Amino acid sequence: MTEIIPDASRRTRRDTVRRQGPQQIQQQKLVKSRRPFPPTRLISDDQVEAIHQASLKVLAEIGMDFMLPEARDILKKAGATIDGERVRFDPGMIEEAMAHAPETFTIHARNAARNMVIGGDNISFGTVGSPPNAHDLDGGRRTGNHADFTKFIKMAHHFNAIDFVSGYPVEPIDIHAGIRHLEVLREVAQLTDKPFIAYSLGVERIRDAIEIARLARGVSHEQFDREPTLTTIVNTNSPLKLDPNMLNGMMEMSRRNQVVCVTPFTLAGAMAPVTVAGALVEQNAEALAGLTFCQLVNPGAPVIYGGFTSNVDMKSGAPAFGTPEYMKSTIIGGQLARRYKVPFRTSNTNAANMMDAQAAYESVFSLWALTMGGGNFIMHGAGWLEGGLVASFEKFVLDCDLIQMVKEFLLPLEVNDDALGVEAIREVGPGGHFFGAQHTLARYSDAFYAPMVSDWRNNQQWDAAGRPDALKRANTLYKQALNEYQAPMFDPAAKDALDDFVNRRLREGGVSTDF
Amino acid sequence: MTEIIPDASRRTRRDTVRRQGPQQIQQQKLVKSRRPFPPTRLISDDQVEAIHQASLKVLAEIGMDFMLPEARDILKKAGATIDGERVRFDPGMIEEAMAHAPETFTIHARNAARNMVIGGDNISFGTVGSPPNAHDLDGGRRTGNHADFTKFIKMAHHFNAIDFVSGYPVEPIDIHAGIRHLEVLREVAQLTDKPFIAYSLGVERIRDAIEIARLARGVSHEQFDREPTLTTIVNTNSPLKLDPNMLNGMMEMSRRNQVVCVTPFTLAGAMAPVTVAGALVEQNAEALAGLTFCQLVNPGAPVIYGGFTSNVDMKSGAPAFGTPEYMKSTIIGGQLARRYKVPFRTSNTNAANMMDAQAAYESVFSLWALTMGGGNFIMHGAGWLEGGLVASFEKFVLDCDLIQMVKEFLLPLEVNDDALGVEAIREVGPGGHFFGAQHTLARYSDAFYAPMVSDWRNNQQWDAAGRPDALKRANTLYKQALNEYQAPMFDPAAKDALDDFVNRRLREGGVSTDF
Repeated sequence: MTEIIPDASRRTRRDTVRRQGPQQIQQQKLVKSRRPFPPTRLISDDQVEAIHQASLKVLAEIGMDFMLPEARDILKKAGATIDGERVRFDPGMIEEAMAHAPETFTIHARNAARNMVIGGDNISFGTVGSPPNAHDLDGGRRTGNHADFTKFIKMAHHFNAIDFVSGYPVEPIDIHAGIRHLEVLREVAQLTDKPFIAYSLGVERIRDAIEIARLARGVSHEQFDREPTLTTIVNTNSPLKLDPNMLNGMMEMSRRNQVVCVTPFTLAGAMAPVTVAGALVEQNAEALAGLTFCQLVNPGAPVIYGGFTSNVDMKSGAPAFGTPEYMKSTIIGGQLARRYKVPFRTSNTNAANMMDAQAAYESVFSLWALTMGGGNFIMHGAGWLEGGLVASFEKFVLDCDLIQMVKEFLLPLEVNDDALGVEAIREVGPGGHFFGAQHTLARYSDAFYAPMVSDWRNNQQWDAAGRPDALKRANTLYKQALNEYQAPMFDPAAKDALDDFVNRRLREGGVSTDF
Repeated sequence: MTEIIPDASRRTRRDTVRRQGPQQIQQQKLVKSRRPFPPTRLISDDQVEAIHQASLKVLAEIGMDFMLPEARDILKKAGATIDGERVRFDPGMIEEAMAHAPETFTIHARNAARNMVIGGDNISFGTVGSPPNAHDLDGGRRTGNHADFTKFIKMAHHFNAIDFVSGYPVEPIDIHAGIRHLEVLREVAQLTDKPFIAYSLGVERIRDAIEIARLARGVSHEQFDREPTLTTIVNTNSPLKLDPNMLNGMMEMSRRNQVVCVTPFTLAGAMAPVTVAGALVEQNAEALAGLTFCQLVNPGAPVIYGGFTSNVDMKSGAPAFGTPEYMKSTIIGGQLARRYKVPFRTSNTNAANMMDAQAAYESVFSLWALTMGGGNFIMHGAGWLEGGLVASFEKFVLDCDLIQMVKEFLLPLEVNDDALGVEAIREVGPGGHFFGAQHTLARYSDAFYAPMVSDWRNNQQWDAAGRPDALKRANTLYKQALNEYQAPMFDPAAKDALDDFVNRRLREGGVSTDF
């Protein structure tokens, strides 16, 4: 249960292959990834400063609506100017508050081997979160439901590529909204020992989620308040609004020293200016406002700067993802987050209607930007399709393969005398081949990354196998993963305490849903 | 004919949209791309030096076979140790020769607007080259032929994404090998005004190609010898051999100050050590030997350092492309080329059997590595499938879209007061939307990259349209491109001179093919 993963930064390819039976899906071993190079700087520091200054101007002159009196009281006390719901921020107040935010912190899982260091050069990948629909080749597109939800959680646990569960991989509409969070967060806490995320939908739900996260770990309130465990994502109501649900979630979570990720959803041309720079100004203003608020609630509470700036197709208004604009805004989002010395959240996105070439290229363009741009906390890492309207089982498996390839790419290269291979080259000599060389025989079994989805058979073999495309192969693999799934160990006392709490809350009727 | 493209480094998104009729494929305008950030350093300078030193050791102690007496004479005169065909290099001799190689140079096209600066932060994309088969959805997989060849050349001309023609996009097997180079290079010179590449297959062919390239431009021998125009790719016979065809090509081209790109084909585990570092040592040794040789033939002749290190699947021996290993070797290849201050050639590769998700993700992983790693001269940019065994019409279009997205990503972001959009945010205010904002109306028509292949319709619209995948859409687009193709202007005098030369050589019977 507590297999501790040593520091991945010292490890290379040869350490990461897990030996498995031939029937099982061959996965990369659990890797905690770190970027071995500095993140890309797409714009100059002066340009970053121009975006920063413009967003300070937005917050000072235009301001942002905080739709909760208690929140406005906190902001007023800290020196903000209040005008109805509108809050205007003094730049000095933002700077002072942001200075308290930690640059890195650890998110604790109930299995310490699944803890994640957030920030710096660390990068962690989560599942897709929140689509209202699920899809697979067999059943087609359908409304999100509990059965599909459960399958996604099992896959999230089974695939080593996945570091955490990003909310509900698909919305289980068939569970009543008043008790949904209780039922499914208990299930998540049982079916996987990886960290998970809760939604900020009012005070009661987030308090329930906090208690579930604490009980699953079996730790005291004091320990829990010292050790960030649960994360919530706050999407501002762009442009420039924060609603009571979000604000209550931020207050409850920050007070308990839990993680708040503030992510404006700033689609250039719709909820944000039609320029990438302008959309980033708005993103930055809203993120700064939210993060500042969390630091006012509890200075030093762990926060994450979220970037989700993309553009809409100006012909149709449809959101576009994995585009050149998305790449730019992602990389610059990282530059902004590092300016404030806080971790950066971004996403693996695409707008394809099926798992075709488009889904793959938009996803890898996203992975390119978030990896090179210094993303730390990657939402929607696996399974996102149709711009987030669908959680796809096949895409989930494909993305796990893509994430593994990114993790493999980030592993330090082995450069020593044996790896440099001069003696192997001498042994083989001009015109020879290396298949039988001693150097090859000693290393061939785990020399290279072994993909799950890629099909490298030659054309004749592939033709004879019925010409399966990547979608068909991923379909087979996801069902295999569900067959292979094994529930993680769960401390019986923790499980009982968790059940007691959830059952009591269910008996109480959960949360009223008259909102 | 001579629309001069201004320096792309000063231009941003808004300058690159070409207005076209609604029926035409909407392309990005011709962009000459430059990286606006330093290339990624995946390994330390010390590790680069370790690879460099190991490859010097290979060349000094093991040596390389140069299978042509004239080549060995040149090397002997420069101080190399000759033992039969084996040539051993003194490290000082390599260093001295490489110091003559230019860091950047211009490849001249018959239309000066198509000239390409090679090296530094410039990046140019070529077509696929050399597959023995062609494929499209309609006709399936077939042996390369003249009709398909011609279509690919027309597409190479039509798509602005393509900067140059990389040899024969598909091998036209139905033209006799003795006259093939004459027929098809004349055709290339007529159907496009972009630069092209010739194969080094003996003295006569490369001399014919040089004369065709000169006549197409209509320049004197003296001007031609001052202005690099033609490029040849030399694939060493890895490990550690160079055959007479390649060596003759290197000598003929370097003597005329034309471009030689030396690209070892070092698949780790087959023709090279099973480690990425070892394969790079072999790549580097072979590249250094070839480039040194060119500099001995003609100090200062333009050369390109070619990297093509990937791995084989150790279970099947099949070559793998677009893998994490390929990404690492590509980025480190760039680090090595920059150590020697020469331009870097690399490729857009994949090993998929069809244009599915795999083809897309392996390609974008390749583009990721070559873009961030400082690739200058990109072979196989569009159309490569099946590890190079197939030139795909649909993949060609997809790749043009992918290249355009890379070029768009590399365009500098507009960061000025208007782009920062504070006044637009003020106009819209909290809770509003930007669709009708003045800022949006002034910019919406060309605000964002408009992809050719991506389908962003919502699920209902896409369903009603028959659920086309990217492959189907690319199939439609390639045929549209062929319909839209227009031959470039060609100076009648140059055309006549070219025809006279080629017709004379055809009457002479071309090249004997008893090799």
